[in-house]
Amino acid sequence: MNNAIETLSAAIRNVPDFPKKGIIFKDITTLLMDKDLLKTAADLLTEKYQGKGITKVVGIESRGFVLGGILAYNLGAGFVLLRKPGKLPADTYSIEYQLEYGTDKLEIHKDSINEGDVVLLHDDLLATGGSAEAAAMLINKMNPKSLEVNFLIELEFLNGRDRLRFATVESLLKF
Amino acid sequence: MNNAIETLSAAIRNVPDFPKKGIIFKDITTLLMDKDLLKTAADLLTEKYQGKGITKVVGIESRGFVLGGILAYNLGAGFVLLRKPGKLPADTYSIEYQLEYGTDKLEIHKDSINEGDVVLLHDDLLATGGSAEAAAMLINKMNPKSLEVNFLIELEFLNGRDRLRFATVESLLKF
Repeated sequence: MNNAIETLSAAIRNVPDFPKKGIIFKDITTLLMDKDLLKTAADLLTEKYQGKGITKVVGIESRGFVLGGILAYNLGAGFVLLRKPGKLPADTYSIEYQLEYGTDKLEIHKDSINEGDVVLLHDDLLATGGSAEAAAMLINKMNPKSLEVNFLIELEFLNGRDRLRFATVESLLKF
Repeated sequence: MNNAIETLSAAIRNVPDFPKKGIIFKDITTLLMDKDLLKTAADLLTEKYQGKGITKVVGIESRGFVLGGILAYNLGAGFVLLRKPGKLPADTYSIEYQLEYGTDKLEIHKDSINEGDVVLLHDDLLATGGSAEAAAMLINKMNPKSLEVNFLIELEFLNGRDRLRFATVESLLKF
């Protein structure tokens, strides 16, 4: 397990100055494109939620769709898409949230989650937690039975977890 | 099998006038959010490629990431992301293609596919085939051993398949 975590962590590519100067971007494509690492990461993420009765996995567009989809499949849950504005065709709830400069928005179909659902929210990366907090708030407004949140990667020094205190948060790879 | 196809087809939601007037949008979120239908669709898509030695599944951003990721996981392949411009952080190849008005672009990481790869390109929907044709051309430039293409849905009356004559094309649900 510890060896697996080290191998997975080493497979993440650091890309300096992306998307802008001073940021070291954690590129997960080098992990996803390796068949063994993809399987290991998916299985380790799945393991923590087996037997918890998860009924819906919600993925944040768009990198959260890859492992989020696999999690839903593995857990025998449905998969729900949290998308950028204007992408979902039916009736949506939406939430606006603060970026460093300006605001952004996430949308979810109104019929996607109901009061009996045990929800797992997934994204690839927890950084400052802005989008994850907005996503969790949006889901909570739909009154699911419970909500857990998980990430492939957590950038611990950014303390994004503090903004998700109202939910149980797990991450596989910590930097 | 035929019953399963009918059930899956019936679960696709028709949204009139989205994204613009006159278009009836095929909304797959109603299928994905149902645990049984998600599993059935993923298993039927997987079945056709078992034993074919697929080494990489390539998904087109962003709906192609959901079932594409599950396909990669099920087939023991790696997963590669074909993304909109400016989203991939490392060195990319890109291709521009024609839309009804103007052009669009897809990018792929240069290190994502090599000459030994047996590639399966996946997207949720084949309509006029513009983005799928561009994606297939981009992948072929990287000289994989072979390329197959599949879709959850094919809108047969738009003849998108004609633009993919150089590859083997499969689709699960035909309208």
